[in-house]
Amino acid sequence: MELGVCYYPEHWPQERWAVDAQMMRDAGLSQVRIGEFAWSRIEPESGKVAWDWLDQAVETLHAAGLKVIMGTPTATPPKWLVDHMPDMVALDRNGKARGFGSRRHYCFSHKGYKAEAARITRAVAERYGDHPAITAWQTDNEYGCHDTVQSFSPAARDAFRKWLEARYKTVEALNAAWGNVFWSMEYRSFEEIELPNLTVTEANPAHWLAFRRFSSDQVMAFNRAQVDILRELSPGRAITHNAMGFYTGYDHFDLGEDLDVLGWDSYPLGFLEMFRFSDEEKTSFARCSHPDIAAFHHDLYRGCAKDGRWSVLEQQPGPVNWARHNPAPLAGMVKLWTLEAAAHGAELVSYFRWRQFTHAQEQMHAGLLRPDGEPAPALGEARQAADMLEELGDIGAPVKHVAIVFDYAAEWMTQIQPQGEGLSALWAAFDCYSAMRRLGLNVDFVKPGVSLTGYALVILPCNPIVTLELAEALEHSQAQIIIGPRTGSRDADFAFPPELAPGALTELCGLTVALSESLRPGLENEGDGWAIARWLDHAEAGHAAEAELVAKDGTLASFRHGRVRTLATWPQGAVLETLVARAARDAGLPYEQLNGHKRRRTTSRYVFDFDCPATQFTVSPV
Amino acid sequence: MELGVCYYPEHWPQERWAVDAQMMRDAGLSQVRIGEFAWSRIEPESGKVAWDWLDQAVETLHAAGLKVIMGTPTATPPKWLVDHMPDMVALDRNGKARGFGSRRHYCFSHKGYKAEAARITRAVAERYGDHPAITAWQTDNEYGCHDTVQSFSPAARDAFRKWLEARYKTVEALNAAWGNVFWSMEYRSFEEIELPNLTVTEANPAHWLAFRRFSSDQVMAFNRAQVDILRELSPGRAITHNAMGFYTGYDHFDLGEDLDVLGWDSYPLGFLEMFRFSDEEKTSFARCSHPDIAAFHHDLYRGCAKDGRWSVLEQQPGPVNWARHNPAPLAGMVKLWTLEAAAHGAELVSYFRWRQFTHAQEQMHAGLLRPDGEPAPALGEARQAADMLEELGDIGAPVKHVAIVFDYAAEWMTQIQPQGEGLSALWAAFDCYSAMRRLGLNVDFVKPGVSLTGYALVILPCNPIVTLELAEALEHSQAQIIIGPRTGSRDADFAFPPELAPGALTELCGLTVALSESLRPGLENEGDGWAIARWLDHAEAGHAAEAELVAKDGTLASFRHGRVRTLATWPQGAVLETLVARAARDAGLPYEQLNGHKRRRTTSRYVFDFDCPATQFTVSPV
Amino acid sequence: MELGVCYYPEHWPQERWAVDAQMMRDAGLSQVRIGEFAWSRIEPESGKVAWDWLDQAVETLHAAGLKVIMGTPTATPPKWLVDHMPDMVALDRNGKARGFGSRRHYCFSHKGYKAEAARITRAVAERYGDHPAITAWQTDNEYGCHDTVQSFSPAARDAFRKWLEARYKTVEALNAAWGNVFWSMEYRSFEEIELPNLTVTEANPAHWLAFRRFSSDQVMAFNRAQVDILRELSPGRAITHNAMGFYTGYDHFDLGEDLDVLGWDSYPLGFLEMFRFSDEEKTSFARCSHPDIAAFHHDLYRGCAKDGRWSVLEQQPGPVNWARHNPAPLAGMVKLWTLEAAAHGAELVSYFRWRQFTHAQEQMHAGLLRPDGEPAPALGEARQAADMLEELGDIGAPVKHVAIVFDYAAEWMTQIQPQGEGLSALWAAFDCYSAMRRLGLNVDFVKPGVSLTGYALVILPCNPIVTLELAEALEHSQAQIIIGPRTGSRDADFAFPPELAPGALTELCGLTVALSESLRPGLENEGDGWAIARWLDHAEAGHAAEAELVAKDGTLASFRHGRVRTLATWPQGAVLETLVARAARDAGLPYEQLNGHKRRRTTSRYVFDFDCPATQFTVSPV
Ligand SMILES: [Zn+2]
Ligand SMILES: [Zn+2]
Ligand SMILES: [Zn+2]
Repeated sequence: MELGVCYYPEHWPQERWAVDAQMMRDAGLSQVRIGEFAWSRIEPESGKVAWDWLDQAVETLHAAGLKVIMGTPTATPPKWLVDHMPDMVALDRNGKARGFGSRRHYCFSHKGYKAEAARITRAVAERYGDHPAITAWQTDNEYGCHDTVQSFSPAARDAFRKWLEARYKTVEALNAAWGNVFWSMEYRSFEEIELPNLTVTEANPAHWLAFRRFSSDQVMAFNRAQVDILRELSPGRAITHNAMGFYTGYDHFDLGEDLDVLGWDSYPLGFLEMFRFSDEEKTSFARCSHPDIAAFHHDLYRGCAKDGRWSVLEQQPGPVNWARHNPAPLAGMVKLWTLEAAAHGAELVSYFRWRQFTHAQEQMHAGLLRPDGEPAPALGEARQAADMLEELGDIGAPVKHVAIVFDYAAEWMTQIQPQGEGLSALWAAFDCYSAMRRLGLNVDFVKPGVSLTGYALVILPCNPIVTLELAEALEHSQAQIIIGPRTGSRDADFAFPPELAPGALTELCGLTVALSESLRPGLENEGDGWAIARWLDHAEAGHAAEAELVAKDGTLASFRHGRVRTLATWPQGAVLETLVARAARDAGLPYEQLNGHKRRRTTSRYVFDFDCPATQFTVSPV
Repeated sequence: MELGVCYYPEHWPQERWAVDAQMMRDAGLSQVRIGEFAWSRIEPESGKVAWDWLDQAVETLHAAGLKVIMGTPTATPPKWLVDHMPDMVALDRNGKARGFGSRRHYCFSHKGYKAEAARITRAVAERYGDHPAITAWQTDNEYGCHDTVQSFSPAARDAFRKWLEARYKTVEALNAAWGNVFWSMEYRSFEEIELPNLTVTEANPAHWLAFRRFSSDQVMAFNRAQVDILRELSPGRAITHNAMGFYTGYDHFDLGEDLDVLGWDSYPLGFLEMFRFSDEEKTSFARCSHPDIAAFHHDLYRGCAKDGRWSVLEQQPGPVNWARHNPAPLAGMVKLWTLEAAAHGAELVSYFRWRQFTHAQEQMHAGLLRPDGEPAPALGEARQAADMLEELGDIGAPVKHVAIVFDYAAEWMTQIQPQGEGLSALWAAFDCYSAMRRLGLNVDFVKPGVSLTGYALVILPCNPIVTLELAEALEHSQAQIIIGPRTGSRDADFAFPPELAPGALTELCGLTVALSESLRPGLENEGDGWAIARWLDHAEAGHAAEAELVAKDGTLASFRHGRVRTLATWPQGAVLETLVARAARDAGLPYEQLNGHKRRRTTSRYVFDFDCPATQFTVSPV
Repeated sequence: MELGVCYYPEHWPQERWAVDAQMMRDAGLSQVRIGEFAWSRIEPESGKVAWDWLDQAVETLHAAGLKVIMGTPTATPPKWLVDHMPDMVALDRNGKARGFGSRRHYCFSHKGYKAEAARITRAVAERYGDHPAITAWQTDNEYGCHDTVQSFSPAARDAFRKWLEARYKTVEALNAAWGNVFWSMEYRSFEEIELPNLTVTEANPAHWLAFRRFSSDQVMAFNRAQVDILRELSPGRAITHNAMGFYTGYDHFDLGEDLDVLGWDSYPLGFLEMFRFSDEEKTSFARCSHPDIAAFHHDLYRGCAKDGRWSVLEQQPGPVNWARHNPAPLAGMVKLWTLEAAAHGAELVSYFRWRQFTHAQEQMHAGLLRPDGEPAPALGEARQAADMLEELGDIGAPVKHVAIVFDYAAEWMTQIQPQGEGLSALWAAFDCYSAMRRLGLNVDFVKPGVSLTGYALVILPCNPIVTLELAEALEHSQAQIIIGPRTGSRDADFAFPPELAPGALTELCGLTVALSESLRPGLENEGDGWAIARWLDHAEAGHAAEAELVAKDGTLASFRHGRVRTLATWPQGAVLETLVARAARDAGLPYEQLNGHKRRRTTSRYVFDFDCPATQFTVSPV
């Protein structure tokens, strides 16, 4: 694995660039990501390009032996462009224009902006496509950041109608698939269909699901246009993009298909503070992060990447500026996070950013250097990590233990219709992941429908849509299987399957879900050290499955049918732990209940043991 | 009492209809509500009606011996109609259009839509008005659901100006009544008056109160237009509408005047979860509901109905889809709720819905059948309830104990100007109701100003406006009287009466309120097992009333003047219980402190005793 | 000090005015504020003025020997004016017009309205400028109330562009000062610059800071236009304005420069309930208020006033209508608050209002009279206060102990970029003030950059911008100095100073801040009876300062360099108390840890001791 850094030469005097390049080399860095926010410097006025400074920056880095990842600057179109086509901005859910003054102020469906994005991409690619320093390209920056995938603009509406026509062919088919007879929502033509926002009460969930799929597809089309240009003009270079944490605005499996390497931006402390962890977790892990946050994304995006190639394109090196509270990592955490990425198979960890900028929105975001150009604490940790990585050499191939089948549409569906407050397929997957990791097991994320061969244990945390391909993959696998609630409960258009849940898995699970309840916190059925909470499926009697976990009041928490366990309650806490431990045992996996906050990653060559709060880790040969 | 069900033949294949009808009969159901969301099937295109399917559905139900309640489909105007007159939609408080894609997307003041609603009502009434299967009509569906009574559209503004002119005659009278000299808010003509939304800070409360009265009146006019058509074209049939729970967007006494039977939609578990009950109550009653929720509405809407005729037009049969959390009722609850409605004098309990729909917004809303057409648990309970009702025969007339004077304007006023966070006339009435019920007493709700003869105890929970009619009705009654805080504190235009509160009741209460405080939770004056909390009126010394409940620090919590008790603090908790028990004693009522969560309803023939959490009830002859 | 009252003759029959005037005199009042909301009565139609009633009101008050403070009525433009120029209203942050129907419905940048405001001011000043009863003028009313300083209108945008051009001269200078190269936010002309609202994510903090300065300056220009007219037409009268509590929408030092007397509106109970005090404080002080709320503003606005002349233009006399909960003051509190204002040097305490109005928005706001014209409790307390003030005679000059350097821009900056949730320069200043007051010391607030001579102790609670003038004033003072976190961390355009924090104070403090963390509640480093919480600066080793307070785990909480102490954590709680006690000791100040909720104010003639919860105070000769 190599180390890199995100660098903004346009922020600093030209005289400083060579100093910076040398300091990067001294710190053990070999790659530099540049350019992704520099449109106003590359093209200060419409059509008037200014390559000199960027030429010089690339040459300076090249001269120092650094490889360059060049970003296309489409996340920050300049003011003159927005003034030229004011309707290029997205409209938010309330129909309000999201204007210039920060970043990502564009609608993925706006044809004019798409043409401009292609134009500037082509210009940059023509300029640097065959430059020997350029080893990779990053398209745009963090698609979807600040909730920018969904746009409720006229451009989006028109594109959505075309997308619907392509999917459903006839409006009668759409009406039937969505059940529009309900509440007289039937359409007579695709031109009658509006976006699902601004309705009196909730729109049809099928309408929302289609809009979520469409919105994801618009991102794919936008990205693919850039990829096509870059492949044409800069052959042999890897194309990547930086995904985000706990973000499901588009289907990352789809994005991975169109890239060579899937990158992501790892901010373990910011994510802990901003996402749904308990106050106790947020406080006790404040300076080291929850031990599964980074790893979860490493494994998820490794699974989403076409050939398993992935990287950390932005790595937190100190306090960030954007969380509710922004503490500093413990001494040693930056090194630990770097090695953890290596253990999970990253190609690159690139710290964000080189030097803390003195101005603007992110002035409180730490870098490897302080704003005054002096080293910040993380610089030395990067150097140590580089040395250690060199010593380890090849990390070895990952060992397969457990597969979690993750479906982006599942999360869209639980967001659209949670049925119980806060229920989420994404967080069900995270909790399943965490439960397996506390057993010391390796976890892979796989796309629904692909082969599950090689896994001893497979988990579907909460997968409403079960295709025939997925059902077959489960049947053909030899794995122990855990089926979470709501799995198989819907078709691709958000309707019940005729046979009810678990739909295509009815025979495999040996049961039918007759009734589902969502339960408020505090409404629990106690079992033996565990409890039914948040959700309860009632399975129909008379099928083949047998009750496995039974609460003290007789309520059934899980069922077993051969190698398939079906969880009738929400996958969380002790009931999940109990079930996965049994399944791991039956699967013959080498599991071990790890102490405290320890986690393990096993490859063909090493066993990595991490203890985040202690900022300690050990690497042992297998 | 009869049993019925809400049915949507348009959701299912025609072949199934006869099967459904037979299953309904087998379950003991005799009435079927249909049609209220079917506009897009009745009139797929403007002016092109399609009666065949509905004819067939009515015939099928008729052939099975079922009576049909036909709904007018005006709650769900189809897309072609909205596209034809896009300004027919309501504007929300922020001025945003509330568009097509769910339901209730119309403004009650839009003349074009009102004409369309009359047209389709006339069409349906002409088609089925004299059909022998049709025994009743329901106008529209749940007026005000999803906060749709108030519209801030140009149509509403124009109608509001006309309404104001009719009420005040001259703008000078309006200025004086509202006190518009304050903050230079004076108008020179009715045409200058805007709707009260979008002001810099709160608008004049008199402005809001007028708008609330106007908005309620617009619903009345909309409903009356349909009633007039139905009375003309379908003579002899009962006309009804389905009101909602804990909803005060319009004056239900006014609605009751224009209907034959006032219906309401009873979702005891959903209401518990969504309204202002404590977390402890929400958890402990999660699967049985708070024991006063259904009964409160039974009695309230019985009181609002012109001749006391009322029904449950929608009865929760299992988990719903719309609450924060959606548990299933305990086994037996559906039967209990059915009998409770009978005990309170309902003509009909109609379960919602027959079969859980596989698609669209309410796919997680249970029915008597599951989505696959198999029986859900409630089907059997309906059958048991039908048998039991047949066995009981005539329930007998209700026995009069206590009257609560409820005023919709009172709730509007506490919403407009709570003075202390969360203070609400509606919830004061609920708490008074609950306190009386825990004493085993029958409670009636009466409209302000009607005779109170026959009641031994009368409560005004929080009635800011006291008309001379109401004052006289109290004087002429022989009842023990409890007067809650803020009663008589305002005139009909939200201004102080010249003599201060309690205004027209000053002599009756024997005191004057000199000063009022609202108190944050935790700021209490302890009494003997009770406390002053949330509100404190200071009564002027020197009047006839004597202190009754006195806190340990000498603060006066209530006063007594002959048969009239005045509560100086908010009616809740132990201070309310203490006071009502004394008043019930002095009234000679047969009260009894019931254990636990038990409730009693007494008629001329039976005593019904309910224990909700235990899902038990007994019926004893008097 | 004199006593006065706010009076609205337009609310009451003319026959009552003389009665009211006599009752005012009997209560010991000598000044009456009138006219500030009466535009619709002064000018019922455009250009048609009606002076008769106001002439009569002024004469009646004059005849009774009362002095009149006349308000310009520009806070409440009448409907005909808004209809004449509908775009005069402000737009809120979401771009929504803030319409007629309450008050303050104008944009400070609208040229048309500014002309109208000048016109009506001139008209009133011409009519009453030389009337002997008129002793003072109040401009407008509560600038900024209901969040009205910032407007996002086209008028504001155009004025902002001009303001920016005047400040930065060239757009290149602005781009450089703001760091607009970040995210390609560079502008090519001032005409390209938009207001900072409605961006996709946060706008540049420099953009916001400029807009906050601009918005404050627009208020100054609006006010100065009236001041100029009043000075011309009513020479010799004091000009004042009524500022608000805990409000920082404009720079009050700037406002003080343009007035003769700075007034403020003191609502101790409402402020306690609505601002950031703990639930425990809100409950235990509910009827007496936190003992520092009124005094903090007395001292702050005394510091903001040009010559130290200040007054209370509105004093809470009973329950108000606008807080979440509105209890009544304890008996004696109104008298105590009046004497407390005297102890801090007020010229006037004017109760708001004379008689509780029977109508409109503030009908639940108490007055000295009840709505029915009878005395409310505060009337007698005013009389007692008047007697006591007469007895005390001259209060004496304030004694100088401690200066707090307060900067309105500091609060704007912590609002714009808190970095840790809830961190606020205003509340840091309040907490420093409270800590000094609990030591029995007098506190003055001073503007950054003025001389600090005469103070034994100076505190900079959290002052990101440190000008050279401020640095020199600190160097030249002999005081013990306490420097709070973030001080000297930014330049005037929200960028890091090249040498990092504390910038211009680096030598004085003897350290450099290398890294800053914000800490979630609960993340603490315990010291000896105190704790590091909310914020932690890491100072660079090798400088002259020595650690003073060190937590048990070795984390440094404060540094000392000669007479300068630098606090590395947020100024609050025990760590602040420990540090200020040490500094007060080293400063040789006569401090004393006061018991309970007692507070002291010392002048050259008296020592005032207040105990709010006990509603007691004593005045002792020095
Ligand atoms: Zn089987
Ligand atoms: Zn009497
Ligand atoms: Zn020094």
